[in-house]
Amino acid sequence: MSNPTAAVLVIGNEILSGRTQDTNLRFLAQGLGARGIRLVEARVIPDIAEVIIGTVNELRARVDVLLTTGGIGPTHDDITSECVAAAFGVPWEPHPEAWARMEASYKPGEFNPARQRMATMPRGAGLIDNAVSVAPGFSIGNVHVLAGVPRVMQAMFATLVERLPRGTPIAARAVHALGAAEGRIAAGLSAIQARYPEADLGSYPFYRPSGNGVAIVAKGTDPARLEAAIAEVAALFATLGYAPVAGEPPAA
Amino acid sequence: MSNPTAAVLVIGNEILSGRTQDTNLRFLAQGLGARGIRLVEARVIPDIAEVIIGTVNELRARVDVLLTTGGIGPTHDDITSECVAAAFGVPWEPHPEAWARMEASYKPGEFNPARQRMATMPRGAGLIDNAVSVAPGFSIGNVHVLAGVPRVMQAMFATLVERLPRGTPIAARAVHALGAAEGRIAAGLSAIQARYPEADLGSYPFYRPSGNGVAIVAKGTDPARLEAAIAEVAALFATLGYAPVAGEPPAA
Repeated sequence: MSNPTAAVLVIGNEILSGRTQDTNLRFLAQGLGARGIRLVEARVIPDIAEVIIGTVNELRARVDVLLTTGGIGPTHDDITSECVAAAFGVPWEPHPEAWARMEASYKPGEFNPARQRMATMPRGAGLIDNAVSVAPGFSIGNVHVLAGVPRVMQAMFATLVERLPRGTPIAARAVHALGAAEGRIAAGLSAIQARYPEADLGSYPFYRPSGNGVAIVAKGTDPARLEAAIAEVAALFATLGYAPVAGEPPAA
Repeated sequence: MSNPTAAVLVIGNEILSGRTQDTNLRFLAQGLGARGIRLVEARVIPDIAEVIIGTVNELRARVDVLLTTGGIGPTHDDITSECVAAAFGVPWEPHPEAWARMEASYKPGEFNPARQRMATMPRGAGLIDNAVSVAPGFSIGNVHVLAGVPRVMQAMFATLVERLPRGTPIAARAVHALGAAEGRIAAGLSAIQARYPEADLGSYPFYRPSGNGVAIVAKGTDPARLEAAIAEVAALFATLGYAPVAGEPPAA
């Protein structure tokens, strides 16, 4: 596939301690897929400078787009911004536009050193504005630094996405059947996968109050081929005595 | 900290495509913390053999405990088990006990080749039984291979956790205040963190129908020190005119 590739780097002790349920990864995964960008890896790492610097450098060399979430607030545990500067080997310094904008948003005397850190960025960074918070994210090279708070992160991504490289959107088609058992469809499914190598077939058992079964999802960039593959899966379900239903099963 | 370390490896295209919201990481993070095991990294990778093999080998060399989730079902996209065998350089072969148990659970003729794959494991693997599914997870070396379906994964972890190394449990204490702004508490919080280096202080803004504010969480292995640090944070909140409330804010 020639689609651009991406990685997501989730930065924050609160995810690794289990305090916080991350939801940013799924949001970004869906947004990247719609843009035709293939998410090839995600990592969750703690707020430790050497780990952040090393991981940013490892991942940015390997993908077209690296998105980070978390660690750009004003407190002592927010160290993403200076770590990204260190990863690029550039000074971490006041960003004039971010600084002026943030200073203007506070009452006199309230734009204190902690808040000034949010207007301090790697030299050469471009701002990622957002409709929710006056503090912007930023981009440097192929690294895009977003907030961790979901509603702020989402607003930043809405601005950022228009600047990202574009690929053929990654489409999905699905079919499911109540009562289906993965162990009974597996052989037929393998044969279909072999005939449609460009349709990435996933098999997902589900357990819902409305019933258990299996959903098959085909992902790829050619909707016609996905539909053909899913039609064969539907026929497979029917052959085995399961009633195929188009799409994913209804949410629990 | 001399606590054992862990990494979690989430294996599955469905997480990277945004189809599925992962919840296993948080569950495992909490369970590991209660056992005194420090989760130092999590990764999400696709169902691609070379990626799984390489990542398992990279991570198992770096941590005391590596947990994987996903990819141990009967379908073509379930390749975790053979990849772990390849990572260890051992044959992937029928596990006599798992095989006998699974064979006995199916009607004659229904323990087909797809299902037999779930009883095929790296040579030397030890089974991880569970109360939900007849198909077990397995351990080899410091790598523990769990299901991706949350209720099966949780049942496997319940068995596994008793066999994991044990450290001093990682405790948490928290205080929050409605109306608090991170930018106003940041300087005082840094000073407290400097006095309590063994209490890992995290600052987390929250946005709830009941109000916005900031929660401060102290994590570490010495509850008395955590309590002392949090008492100082509460005093800081009060000094700035915010009313401190013990614990995390109520769920949304």
